[in-house]
Amino acid sequence: MSKLDEVLNLAKIKGYFWPAYDVYGGSSGFYVLGPYGVILTNGITSLWRQLFVRPMGFLEIDAPSVTPYKVLKSSGHVDNFKDPMAECSNCHNKYRADNLLSEAGKEISESASPEAMQLALNDDHIRCPNCGFTNWVVKPFMTMFSTNIGPYENSEGFLRPETAQGIFVEFQRLLSLNRGKLPMGVSQAGRGFRNEISPRQSIIRLREFHMLEVELFIDPAAKVSVIRPSEKRLPILHEAILSAGRAEPDHLTLVEALDKGIVKNEWLGMFMQLSLELLCNLGVPVERQRFREKLKGERAHYSAQTFDHEVFIEEVGWLEVAGHAYRTDYDLKSHMKGSGQDMTVSVDLESPISVPKKKVNFRIDALKLRYPESWQGILAGGYRLDENGVLFNGTPIDRDVYTINETVEVVKVRKIIPHVVEPSFGLERLMLACMYFAYQKKDDRIVLSVPGGVIKRVAAVFPLLSKPELTLRAQEVRERLLKAGIDVIYDDSGSIGRRYARVDEAGVPIAITIDHQSLEDGTVTVRNRDTWEQVRKPEDQLVSFMESLSLY
Amino acid sequence: MSKLDEVLNLAKIKGYFWPAYDVYGGSSGFYVLGPYGVILTNGITSLWRQLFVRPMGFLEIDAPSVTPYKVLKSSGHVDNFKDPMAECSNCHNKYRADNLLSEAGKEISESASPEAMQLALNDDHIRCPNCGFTNWVVKPFMTMFSTNIGPYENSEGFLRPETAQGIFVEFQRLLSLNRGKLPMGVSQAGRGFRNEISPRQSIIRLREFHMLEVELFIDPAAKVSVIRPSEKRLPILHEAILSAGRAEPDHLTLVEALDKGIVKNEWLGMFMQLSLELLCNLGVPVERQRFREKLKGERAHYSAQTFDHEVFIEEVGWLEVAGHAYRTDYDLKSHMKGSGQDMTVSVDLESPISVPKKKVNFRIDALKLRYPESWQGILAGGYRLDENGVLFNGTPIDRDVYTINETVEVVKVRKIIPHVVEPSFGLERLMLACMYFAYQKKDDRIVLSVPGGVIKRVAAVFPLLSKPELTLRAQEVRERLLKAGIDVIYDDSGSIGRRYARVDEAGVPIAITIDHQSLEDGTVTVRNRDTWEQVRKPEDQLVSFMESLSLY
Repeated sequence: MSKLDEVLNLAKIKGYFWPAYDVYGGSSGFYVLGPYGVILTNGITSLWRQLFVRPMGFLEIDAPSVTPYKVLKSSGHVDNFKDPMAECSNCHNKYRADNLLSEAGKEISESASPEAMQLALNDDHIRCPNCGFTNWVVKPFMTMFSTNIGPYENSEGFLRPETAQGIFVEFQRLLSLNRGKLPMGVSQAGRGFRNEISPRQSIIRLREFHMLEVELFIDPAAKVSVIRPSEKRLPILHEAILSAGRAEPDHLTLVEALDKGIVKNEWLGMFMQLSLELLCNLGVPVERQRFREKLKGERAHYSAQTFDHEVFIEEVGWLEVAGHAYRTDYDLKSHMKGSGQDMTVSVDLESPISVPKKKVNFRIDALKLRYPESWQGILAGGYRLDENGVLFNGTPIDRDVYTINETVEVVKVRKIIPHVVEPSFGLERLMLACMYFAYQKKDDRIVLSVPGGVIKRVAAVFPLLSKPELTLRAQEVRERLLKAGIDVIYDDSGSIGRRYARVDEAGVPIAITIDHQSLEDGTVTVRNRDTWEQVRKPEDQLVSFMESLSLY
Repeated sequence: MSKLDEVLNLAKIKGYFWPAYDVYGGSSGFYVLGPYGVILTNGITSLWRQLFVRPMGFLEIDAPSVTPYKVLKSSGHVDNFKDPMAECSNCHNKYRADNLLSEAGKEISESASPEAMQLALNDDHIRCPNCGFTNWVVKPFMTMFSTNIGPYENSEGFLRPETAQGIFVEFQRLLSLNRGKLPMGVSQAGRGFRNEISPRQSIIRLREFHMLEVELFIDPAAKVSVIRPSEKRLPILHEAILSAGRAEPDHLTLVEALDKGIVKNEWLGMFMQLSLELLCNLGVPVERQRFREKLKGERAHYSAQTFDHEVFIEEVGWLEVAGHAYRTDYDLKSHMKGSGQDMTVSVDLESPISVPKKKVNFRIDALKLRYPESWQGILAGGYRLDENGVLFNGTPIDRDVYTINETVEVVKVRKIIPHVVEPSFGLERLMLACMYFAYQKKDDRIVLSVPGGVIKRVAAVFPLLSKPELTLRAQEVRERLLKAGIDVIYDDSGSIGRRYARVDEAGVPIAITIDHQSLEDGTVTVRNRDTWEQVRKPEDQLVSFMESLSLY
């Protein structure tokens, strides 16, 4: 069994995650997060909030997942959110055309047209994995789940393909909640949906999944000073390297990457740095990480520059866990156009600027006399002022019917459409990466050494034996921890060794055992998941002791 | 403006919640939870976990919202999850037939057939609210959002109408995670979807909402002792009261309600008691609460007994915030039938029972001789044993070709299909009830006095003035609190009074101000939202001081 298979097996047996609807024969692309999966994903989500949301005072919202047609038409998803679908002319099975080609060792650009893919499949006589036939028809398939909202026909809606659009359409209200200030960060942790043609690969490619997204709205002209510049180097596989056909990333500090123009936006760079920090906190070694730039044809329709944050997992290769995209003003511009609503923002100029203004004053009597037919049209504003003077219907007007007043207007603001920078994570993939690198064998036993700070405020409580006096006392300890906001796994069955093994496999950092000595002196043993060391501690110091532990 | 309107207005302005997709003209039944709404609903969800999930060691999972057809066919939703839809024959607007009738002051049972409703609408000449026409056609409308899973036709799926089904279909795996033990509680906090015919009433009737559900699997024959019996009386408007046409609930302790057979299951009663506690913790006065029993025709198709937990809000009337249902073995039985999988559980008998067993030993030679034609059929098991002896094809067999051995078998387990008891909350309605009763006016200012323990670990941090030395120090305080896991609302613009007012309206329990004295002696002022009292505290004691506050 490969390490990945062992991890997936553990996930299933211990209740991290498993394929949903098994009793009904399953439904590809849907997974259940079990009890330990909920604990672990909650831990990862908190960590993300600590890094990406809280420190910068970003807002967090929770928007609906059902989205009306108009929204996703404006955003470009209705037209662009498609995968090339190859249908076998014989058995009518359906596959992703690009996957069939890459599995057959044929290179084709992600941006190739369906026609080009069809040609490639048929020219190369690629066999149908189901029936072996070699005749394909390739068409674009829209990978959003479609539904109808309400009882009227033609009221189409979709399940959101990303949480981002739910933020963009609320931009004005959010900006007013932020009292008009830019930069404004808005985050959302929630489900995303993609109606994949043929999802496989366990939990890696899902039809329903959890996303952690931030949409940062910025004034592109505002000066940005890099917050927390770090000497930690980002492994960046950028366009120049890829174009040269090389596969070794450059290792650059954030400041270098920005100075060399490799990363085109300061915020994009800062998010990449935070992303590196997040993955390191999840236990992914830095040498197993890279930021791969998406080439022009590979990028989403809204992106000016995107870096995929990838993690190397032996059995999978480089796995994308996040996309960091500079979306420019594409999103707000699209929704302004689609909704007809103004989404511009007035930004204070650093120093007010003086704009020269010219005003025409007509000498009415002279004007009437000189232009008896057209003077009314001229006064109604039908003239134009250029460097040659006043023109009406393209013809200069006599200089002596008007004078020009020159004034100076002081401008303090300018109107902009904010640009958007977006770090977007797939939560299930973060969980998988975390579990993969935490998975360890120790004396033939499995220990899931999830790094400190991920599974936080979780402890196991065991009475040494299932005698009433011990279980009663253990229940009291449990209550005490619950009251302090600590999640407790309580277990009073089986040998104590077996119980320790169970929580080690589950990644629970701390196990607390209540024995006969506890009844006498109020102390309990606290066992460390990683070192298997046990120390005695008084019950009433448990919470503060646990919080002082680095693995906790 | 009514109080409810004021609350809804505050919700919109302060960013608790607002109608989604406004820039596109809106989409009925969809709301956004804004930043304060996320904080408040997270607080309510934690409180629910503390009461309904943690203390009893219930599991928590997170299942997909897209659900295959088969699952919801088996569960009965495809056939039963329907509302009567009245279509105007003139303008073709569509409404809920029962709503049209009740708004016109006509009483009709929720369980009346579409034909009966159509007759009632037309007989009473109920006018179309849109065009005034009085000719209606009533049909059942299925209120699940339908979609297609994957690229093949006829692969229908629905958005889950309740999180419960995602638990039932995973019953076997969950039971094995629970090591086969009953009772087993499984909880889920997540979205539910109902494709309402014409949702109105602000956030009260939504097409997409958040649910907090527990499915408790029990052995119906197991003895249950009431945990934490309380003298607090439950206001129960039960069937006998309703049948007598009265509206005043009985006020019963849990033990009384169970003894009198008014609440038919101990767990159902315990959940009702916890539900009362939850609502009281959210600040809803007990005299504004009641448990209304659903009558036979009103109950969901799966329920043997249901109590709606209702809250009285002046402008709305009695609002359902939770349903507590005794679902019996309906759910697992349905999925056993639908999936063909065994979902029975072997339950240990309290004491093993001895079952007498009789075994027939044939004397083969005698049997062959006496029954030369049929002896093979008899030996193959084609006989029956009753009190008269062995019969073959209904005819007794000669006594001298066999003997009967009487033995005793010791049986230690019996097979059962677990019953389900379910407390199910609508999170948005809990939030609304909480805000409604927390809304207060004080000196013409609005204070949202959300009770202690709901908005927890949230504080505001203000530099008294926006001078660099103060903002820098305030940022440090903010960092310190963030590190301790406290949410911080940081604000450095506007007068300090205005800033206090803003966080009072938002329900933030604590505001911390950094002034010049802070720079000198490291103390800050801590202001209480409800009393407006301020005390000075050293920065390094902030976290422990805050945790000691009752409103926190």
